[in-house]
Amino acid sequence: MADEAAVRQQAEVVRRLKQDKAEPDEIAKEVAKLLEMKAHLGGDEGKHKFVLKTPKGTRDYGPKQMAIRERVFSAIIACFKRHGAEVIDTPVFELKETLTGKYGEDSKLIYDLKDQGGELLSLRYDLTVPFARYLAMNKITNIKRYHIAKVYRRDNPAMTRGRYREFYQCDFDIAGQFDPMIPDAECLKIVQEILSDLQLGDFLIKVNDRRILDGMFAVCGVPDSKFRTICSSVDKLDKMPWEEVRNEMVGEKGLSPEAADRIGEYVQLHGGMDLIEQLLQDPKLSQNKLAKEGLGDMKLLFEYLTLFGITGKISFDLSLARGLDYYTGVIYEAVLLQQENDHGEESVSVGSVAGGGRYDGLVGMFDPKGRKVPCVGISIGIERIFSILEQRVEASEEKIRTTETQVLVASAQKKLLEERLKLISELWDAGIKAEVLYKKNPKLLNQLQYCEDTGIPLVAIVGEQELKDGVVKLRVVATREEVNIRRESLVEEIRRRTNQL
Amino acid sequence: MADEAAVRQQAEVVRRLKQDKAEPDEIAKEVAKLLEMKAHLGGDEGKHKFVLKTPKGTRDYGPKQMAIRERVFSAIIACFKRHGAEVIDTPVFELKETLTGKYGEDSKLIYDLKDQGGELLSLRYDLTVPFARYLAMNKITNIKRYHIAKVYRRDNPAMTRGRYREFYQCDFDIAGQFDPMIPDAECLKIVQEILSDLQLGDFLIKVNDRRILDGMFAVCGVPDSKFRTICSSVDKLDKMPWEEVRNEMVGEKGLSPEAADRIGEYVQLHGGMDLIEQLLQDPKLSQNKLAKEGLGDMKLLFEYLTLFGITGKISFDLSLARGLDYYTGVIYEAVLLQQENDHGEESVSVGSVAGGGRYDGLVGMFDPKGRKVPCVGISIGIERIFSILEQRVEASEEKIRTTETQVLVASAQKKLLEERLKLISELWDAGIKAEVLYKKNPKLLNQLQYCEDTGIPLVAIVGEQELKDGVVKLRVVATREEVNIRRESLVEEIRRRTNQL
Repeated sequence: MADEAAVRQQAEVVRRLKQDKAEPDEIAKEVAKLLEMKAHLGGDEGKHKFVLKTPKGTRDYGPKQMAIRERVFSAIIACFKRHGAEVIDTPVFELKETLTGKYGEDSKLIYDLKDQGGELLSLRYDLTVPFARYLAMNKITNIKRYHIAKVYRRDNPAMTRGRYREFYQCDFDIAGQFDPMIPDAECLKIVQEILSDLQLGDFLIKVNDRRILDGMFAVCGVPDSKFRTICSSVDKLDKMPWEEVRNEMVGEKGLSPEAADRIGEYVQLHGGMDLIEQLLQDPKLSQNKLAKEGLGDMKLLFEYLTLFGITGKISFDLSLARGLDYYTGVIYEAVLLQQENDHGEESVSVGSVAGGGRYDGLVGMFDPKGRKVPCVGISIGIERIFSILEQRVEASEEKIRTTETQVLVASAQKKLLEERLKLISELWDAGIKAEVLYKKNPKLLNQLQYCEDTGIPLVAIVGEQELKDGVVKLRVVATREEVNIRRESLVEEIRRRTNQL
Repeated sequence: MADEAAVRQQAEVVRRLKQDKAEPDEIAKEVAKLLEMKAHLGGDEGKHKFVLKTPKGTRDYGPKQMAIRERVFSAIIACFKRHGAEVIDTPVFELKETLTGKYGEDSKLIYDLKDQGGELLSLRYDLTVPFARYLAMNKITNIKRYHIAKVYRRDNPAMTRGRYREFYQCDFDIAGQFDPMIPDAECLKIVQEILSDLQLGDFLIKVNDRRILDGMFAVCGVPDSKFRTICSSVDKLDKMPWEEVRNEMVGEKGLSPEAADRIGEYVQLHGGMDLIEQLLQDPKLSQNKLAKEGLGDMKLLFEYLTLFGITGKISFDLSLARGLDYYTGVIYEAVLLQQENDHGEESVSVGSVAGGGRYDGLVGMFDPKGRKVPCVGISIGIERIFSILEQRVEASEEKIRTTETQVLVASAQKKLLEERLKLISELWDAGIKAEVLYKKNPKLLNQLQYCEDTGIPLVAIVGEQELKDGVVKLRVVATREEVNIRRESLVEEIRRRTNQL
């Protein structure tokens, strides 16, 4: 059975290699995995019934990873709440037709559920389309909300770089008819606050506008029908050099070489207010209605970003396209510029850690009468941030506590289980975080060792003498100091001592 | 298109009715839904392209529901942490074969993913099997962890009673080789603490042991091969009267009437230490090795529960069976006894709100060498608790805030957007939770109304005069009191005033 599974997996890897979908570092990794698997199979004599693993592109989070994850979440949630957001949640799957026609070329990456009778379902691909469905279904025209949940994409995983098939998105969106660019500017401020808070090193937020892109395509001579597909080629510029993108445009997508070269000139431009002013004067772009609108709004956006004092982190970048079909206005993407690396190890390459934009048409696609609700939002890509922080914690050998236990209830002699249970029950009922070893007669040394291992700062020791005297011996693990505390003052004393920590 | 969908859905309902799987109140509900759907379709002239809904048996959580949900989660997490638990997370889907053979008759309710190439996957059915897979895969023999996440069951939903196809489970488990019944007793203490904390009204935790059940089946004359299926009949005693369960045993499952009647006598027994002592003397049960072991451990459990002072909430109940295949020892289930009902409305019938037990064999099913890791755990069924609290909040007309915003940055005159943005940026950077209306020139009245609607306690008002004087006018929404605060003291003053709230 195990051999069968291995053969099947091998075949899959080979198929992927043949399809040329794997990147070089992935190939190396797959080969290493295969070798490991082979070695493993050799030694086991066919005893186990199946491969013990999580599905491809997914991972478990153990207690240490969760401690890091919760730190990140709490920073992000604090920021979202600071900006007055409410929170919602939607189901992990949607009707299949809810997701149809929203993601362009990426639709092939959607996970479908098996038809087991009843409705046809798909796992959510992002949190934006479910949000739009929620707004239309509940006729909400005005909300500022965040949503933190897992989304699913049948992508080629690159897990060391934090790219998974199941991953968290942390989304903040503002829906409603408002004056131009004020909510858009707040979204960028939020990205800046979160990336600064998390101390991930230097970062840059690239900004563009779908209308500027479309205007640019028009003045470069791209036929209307090719806008979306050429846009998705431009989107690859962060992963491929211009020459390859140009080949795709001309070779695969049938664009004229002249049009491609004109695009090539624009997409190398990036800058700030200066570039906006320059393009507003551009003889071709300034004649295009869409581009002019986009540039006007971009100028307003930069004025607001100046008031927020964050233009130093923002780059207006004509090469930024973003893959998803539903954007209609401003788009943005945050990238980390360089990884800190104190230990001379290979640095983690992480790419984009946040993205988003304006999607004014999406809610209308769900509304029976096509009523539009303008929306703008951001999505923080948590897994890549985890990868960096996880590696940083490992490198620093920082000891992370994975519990918050304040005190271990212990005994120095045998036959005191009942007394330990009575005491710990009192502590729990008083709200103290307490543990006890699940042994009838544990050795004191083992109990103290448990505190060392798990970082519990205090030990409450019961013994024959202490019971007679109506006291508990409280030991401070770090200093080995021991004091007798009257039983009725114990809760107070534990609180006092653990608040100081 | 809409008509097609309706016809399909209608066909599905009819099929379900024919299969006799629907309960009477569900049939009534389905009929009402059909009528509503028909009326809806009649009035719309085929304009919208699809039914705007969440998948069957699922729901969205809006901001108010989320506020209630987060209260419940924080009480539960606080309790888990008080007992020293770490936290883990696993993927929402597992390899299909990971779930195979773990759930007995319930396996038919598992959601499978479509075969899109690669591995065959299923959505997790509970958090226990993924936990066991995690332990085996990482060779962990000793952990106390909690896990809060959604699980998926293709069950007949009864949403008004809080029964969904997608629902949260809050699991706490203790894995490891320990002295008998100490971790088991702690699990029951945790259920008692959580249900008391949440103030859901009176509750009872029923306790039994799979070994006592199996011993009982043996001495009643049930053939070994029928233990599991008879056990799953006994499990229905909380929903059906004994006569129906007896009919199922004898008619459908081919048990002899005499054996069924003997079971009938045992399963009506419930009590405490007295009943345990009585059964330890029972001439038949006391001769059965399994039953004797189970009763011995039950006695020990009640001794520990006495030390915890919670035997008043516990009932040793021979009719408790629990459906899942993997339990091997003590099992338990908490039920709410009666709903408070101040408003004379129909009370919510909720049934079980927590359950769990010991499963010493599950990890071994995953380990290549079959190494066992004894486990015991509890699972809190959150959706039913939500249903009760949601209904209670609605009945009480309690106003729930869905944001934590401390201050709205407002202006009394026109053309002050830039000044509002500058000020709010300062406040955000100082960690103040602040909002601004996304209008260039909002009316003061609208800004104050926004605070009333959303519960924002303070308004920071900028105006020409205040700007000249270097102050901001701080208004307390509740009292309409207004004071001028020097700009450099504003953050401090907002903190001071919102800490008092």
